[in-house]
This record gives sequence, C-alpha cells and structure tokens, in this order.
Amino acid sequence: MKQVLDIPAELTGVQNWVLSGLVQVTDEIERALNSEVPAVAELCKQVEQFRGKMLRPTLVLVSGASCGISIEEPPPAELLRLAAVVEMVHMATLVHDDVLDEAEIRRRAQTINDKAGNESAVLLGDYLIAASFRLCASLSDPEPSRLIGKVSMELCEGELLQLQNRDNLSIDEPTYYEILEGKTAALVGACTRLGSRAGGGDEKVQNAMDSFGRAIGVAFQVQDDLLDLLGNEEVVGKSLGRDLKKGKLTLPLIHHLASLQPESRAASLTFLEEASETRGNGAPANTKQLIEALRSTGSLDYSRASAESLIGRAKDALTVLGIGPARSVLELLADAVLTRDR
Amino acid sequence: MKQVLDIPAELTGVQNWVLSGLVQVTDEIERALNSEVPAVAELCKQVEQFRGKMLRPTLVLVSGASCGISIEEPPPAELLRLAAVVEMVHMATLVHDDVLDEAEIRRRAQTINDKAGNESAVLLGDYLIAASFRLCASLSDPEPSRLIGKVSMELCEGELLQLQNRDNLSIDEPTYYEILEGKTAALVGACTRLGSRAGGGDEKVQNAMDSFGRAIGVAFQVQDDLLDLLGNEEVVGKSLGRDLKKGKLTLPLIHHLASLQPESRAASLTFLEEASETRGNGAPANTKQLIEALRSTGSLDYSRASAESLIGRAKDALTVLGIGPARSVLELLADAVLTRDR
Repeated sequence: MKQVLDIPAELTGVQNWVLSGLVQVTDEIERALNSEVPAVAELCKQVEQFRGKMLRPTLVLVSGASCGISIEEPPPAELLRLAAVVEMVHMATLVHDDVLDEAEIRRRAQTINDKAGNESAVLLGDYLIAASFRLCASLSDPEPSRLIGKVSMELCEGELLQLQNRDNLSIDEPTYYEILEGKTAALVGACTRLGSRAGGGDEKVQNAMDSFGRAIGVAFQVQDDLLDLLGNEEVVGKSLGRDLKKGKLTLPLIHHLASLQPESRAASLTFLEEASETRGNGAPANTKQLIEALRSTGSLDYSRASAESLIGRAKDALTVLGIGPARSVLELLADAVLTRDR
Repeated sequence: MKQVLDIPAELTGVQNWVLSGLVQVTDEIERALNSEVPAVAELCKQVEQFRGKMLRPTLVLVSGASCGISIEEPPPAELLRLAAVVEMVHMATLVHDDVLDEAEIRRRAQTINDKAGNESAVLLGDYLIAASFRLCASLSDPEPSRLIGKVSMELCEGELLQLQNRDNLSIDEPTYYEILEGKTAALVGACTRLGSRAGGGDEKVQNAMDSFGRAIGVAFQVQDDLLDLLGNEEVVGKSLGRDLKKGKLTLPLIHHLASLQPESRAASLTFLEEASETRGNGAPANTKQLIEALRSTGSLDYSRASAESLIGRAKDALTVLGIGPARSVLELLADAVLTRDR
C-alpha cells in the first residue's frame, strides 16, 4: 500500500495492519500454487515476479476493516484467503493477456509466453484459475465461490467484447464502458463486496461496496487512457500508436472522433495514425500536434472529468459506512486513482 | 450412451434413464453458458458442435444410480448439474487443447481457434472453465467445488508435464502414466466419485468409484495409443508420424524403445521416423514394417495387456457396490473401452 499512496499519520494503524496482512496473503498464494510437478512449480515461481501493488487484496482487507473487522487483531484467516483468491484470479488474467498481446515483458520480468512459450502460458493461466477456485471453495461461506465464478465469466465477456471491437473505429461510449465493466470493474467490485461481506456488512452495505469497487475500477482504466497520452510526453506517440495499431480506441479518441463531422473523422484518423507512426524517437512537435487535436475537441478534459465523476460516485457510495480510519483509507485509495502516475 | 455400447435388454431401464438425463444435461449446459454478449453467445453455440458421446456425464449419472439413486424417478437436479459441470470442464480443455495443437477440425466442425482465432479460443476456454465453476458452486454441497478445483489443477499439471516431455525420446513409463493420470484420469475419477457421492455412497464407496474412474480413464488413453497404430491401417503411418512429429511418444513406442539396447535405439528411432515420413499415400509395406518392429519387441501385446489389466482393476473396484443393473452398465462401459473403435 506504501506504493499506492502516502498515508497521513492517523491512518498508519490501518496501513500496518494491511501490510502485515499482505505478507500473509503472499504466503497463502504460494501455498495454493504449490505443485509437486517441478515444471509447474518453476512456472509459478516465474509468475510471482509479476506481483505488483496488490491493489485487489488491499481492497479486500480495507473493505473488511471498514465493515467491522478489528485492526487490533491480525486479519482473520478467511479474509486473507479471499484476498489471495482475487489476486490469483488477477494473475491468471495477466498471464493470458500477455499471450493475447504477445507481450514480452511485464514489470521488468520476462512474460511466461516469451520465456516458456504460448502453450505453457495458456496452461499456467488455467492452473492459476483452477487454484483460485479451489482456494475459494475451501472457505466455509459458499457465496464467494459463486461470485468469483460469475465475475470470472464477466471478465472473459469483457475481453471478448474488446476483441470483437478491435479495429472498430466507430466504437461508442456505452460499448467502451461495457468492456471496462467486464474486464476490470467486475473483479474490483467483487474485492470490495467480499471484504465487506467477510466483515459482516449486510446486503445493502455489500451492494454499496460493490458499486464503490466497480466505479474505481472503471476510473482506473479511464485514467490509464489519459496516462497513455499525457503520462510521459516522450512515449505518448508510441503509446498512441500501439493502441491504434492494436485497433483499440481509448476514451479521449472515442470522444474526439465522435465530436467531429463524418467528413473530418476519416481525415483525423489518418492524421492520428500518421502522427503516431512518424513519432519513433520523440520529435516533440508531433506529440504536441496529437495532444492539440484531442484538446481542440475538449476530449482530454472530457476524459478527465469522466474519471473524476466516477471517483466522486465511488466516494458517495461509501456514505453507507460509518466514519472511521478504514473508510478514510478507502477514500484515499479512490483519490489515488486520479493522481497516480502508473 | 447408445453410441458408447450395445446394451442387453435387461439394462434398457438404466439406458433410457441416462438418455433422458443427458437431454436435460445439455439444457443445463446451454443455460449455464448463456451470455448477453452476442459475440460470446455465438462462440458458445459453435463449441456445442463438438459435443461427443458425453461419456463423463454418463458416468456421473450411472454412478449415481449404482449408489442408490432410483431410476424410477427422473435424475435429481443436483446429479444433472454435476453431470453438466464435468462436461463443461471437459469442453474447456478441448478448446484450449485445440489452441495448443493448432487443430483445425474437431468432430467434423471447425475449431474455435481456426474459426475465430487463438485469442477468442483462449478466452472462450476461460469462459467455459469459469461457467463450470460457477455452476458447481451453485450446488448445496460444497465438496464438488473443492474437488473440481483440485482436479482442474491436476489436469493442467498433466498437460504441462506432457509439454515438458515433448521431444523426450527417453520418457519412461512412470512419467507416461503420470501424464495420463493428470490430463485424463483425474477428471474421470471425479465423475464417478461425485456421482456416487450424490447417490449417498460413503467415503469407502466414493474412493472405490474414484479408482474405477481413474483406471478406465488411463485405459482409454492406452487404447487410444493402440488405435492410432492399429485402428485403421491406412492412416497408421500418418498417425504415428504425427505423434512423433509432435515429439509425443505412445506406450507401444516407449516400450519398444526401452526394450532395445541403447545402440539399436537410435537406429530404431530413425527407422520409425523415416518409415512414417515416407508413408504419405499409404504404401502398406511400410505400415507393416512399423507394426513388425513393434511386434518384434512384444510392444503391441504389452500395451494391450496393460489396458486389459487396468480394466480388470477397474471392475474389481466395483465389487464395493451391490449387484444391480447400474453396476452392470458400469462394467459394460469399462469393457467398451477395450472394444471401441473410436
């Protein structure tokens, strides 16, 4: 969590509780992936190098604390297990995503597909999914297994919808959001729902926490689109080019193209493609032209406002909770979505 | 089941009960895969064309009947659901197997990867796994979810072990059997275990039924190896060539190579490869030479005896059950593994 946000002194209690919990979550994952087949064990070791900020387990833990789990005691076993489950589902999607994207590097480590081949990567992803379901089914509450099964289906639906809309330059906003709901928001919503459920939150609280999670999940992706363009001027052309090359439109582009008359849309697309193609070694003039085009239609402000509005809605959902340090941490995590630089 | 075996008149009661159940299992699968995303729904329709003999759901149903479920009533909902779950897990493995094998045709239908691309096929396989887990988690008994999670991990381990031993021409029998245990036997054992559990079988009965399922699963694969060689003389060279080309050794070949002195092993391998390469349009002399080489070391008889011994062990496991028509059907299903011609 340290990596996710700077935390005020009065919230360090929650922070330390989460950090100690995450260590145990890591152990739990390692145990769940344990295999007597040496080839499998080796691949699992490799995949653990991709471990990032563990945002999803963090959300499970803090949601639990926000709904009544005491931070005076170590996190209960069932909460830790839930946190491990959502991270394992996430890891599985990363491994298969890298196959789909033919990615070679993730978090400075070689991807499974690049190191061991597509076949191993497909099978390892399957192994991770199976292990996460198995761990989830070991809980005394059957509800998480049902939800994780449902959410995993939504994940695939989101990815398949995205695939179907590849090269669809007239993709509209509802479809864009439908993709994000599936591929990102559903699992993040499950994190906050399951954490609050484990904490004893009733149906109303669980629904509100699900909305909170989904909203920050979508905002995270919208912010990702903006970071691709603005995060680092030196790579903007390249990023934009990569997305266009993959036939994947981001929110600023969708808004930009939708704002233009049909006649100028084709010209604008060609311009965008050419501009990104000629980038290469970072002539700032081109970068500025790209940003200028998006700015002329207000598409950057529009996307930024969309992300902010989602974070606003997310924090509104939290009013169902009593005021307390865990809720404050959830609010900070939501704000951090807008201020993060990757 | 009609496709699986000819059934004596006194067992038609079980047969009809199973056949009516399989119709409902098909409906259950269709409902479980239902998606509001049109692209996903279309892929699911495509994958249903691969439906084969439904051996796994059949084993669930008959195992249930052999342990006390009455065939005078329609199969209970939980048993049908279990039967749907195991078939969906199997479907998922077929879809991902076709990606790994770059297969173009399955059961005379175009594979998902060939029709919609590898990316869609990877994601559809994931969707099928998730849907099977979700359906399984909807049962009131949590035990099937735990077992299906565990068995799905074993499936991946078996496949990964096979992948690791690709081009390993000195693969030994224990490794060969370890691969089959994972990629085939574990799921078949789960079918017979879960069916008997749903029928009220105690721990001892469930374990015996698991052994029965695992033994026929392994025998099925050994028989597959033999059918590749002997099932149809016209394609033998091609089949053998395909397995060798994939670096996948079958039991007759493993036995054959292990029976030879190291000096003659290399020569024999070269001979086998060349013989299969020159096959092409079916010169019977070469086929005969291949078979002759395997026969000279007793490798065909050895493999046949191995399959027969497994079926014998499978039927021995059934002695834990009382005598009755459902048990007789299980025995017939076991025998059919040896007499089937694909």
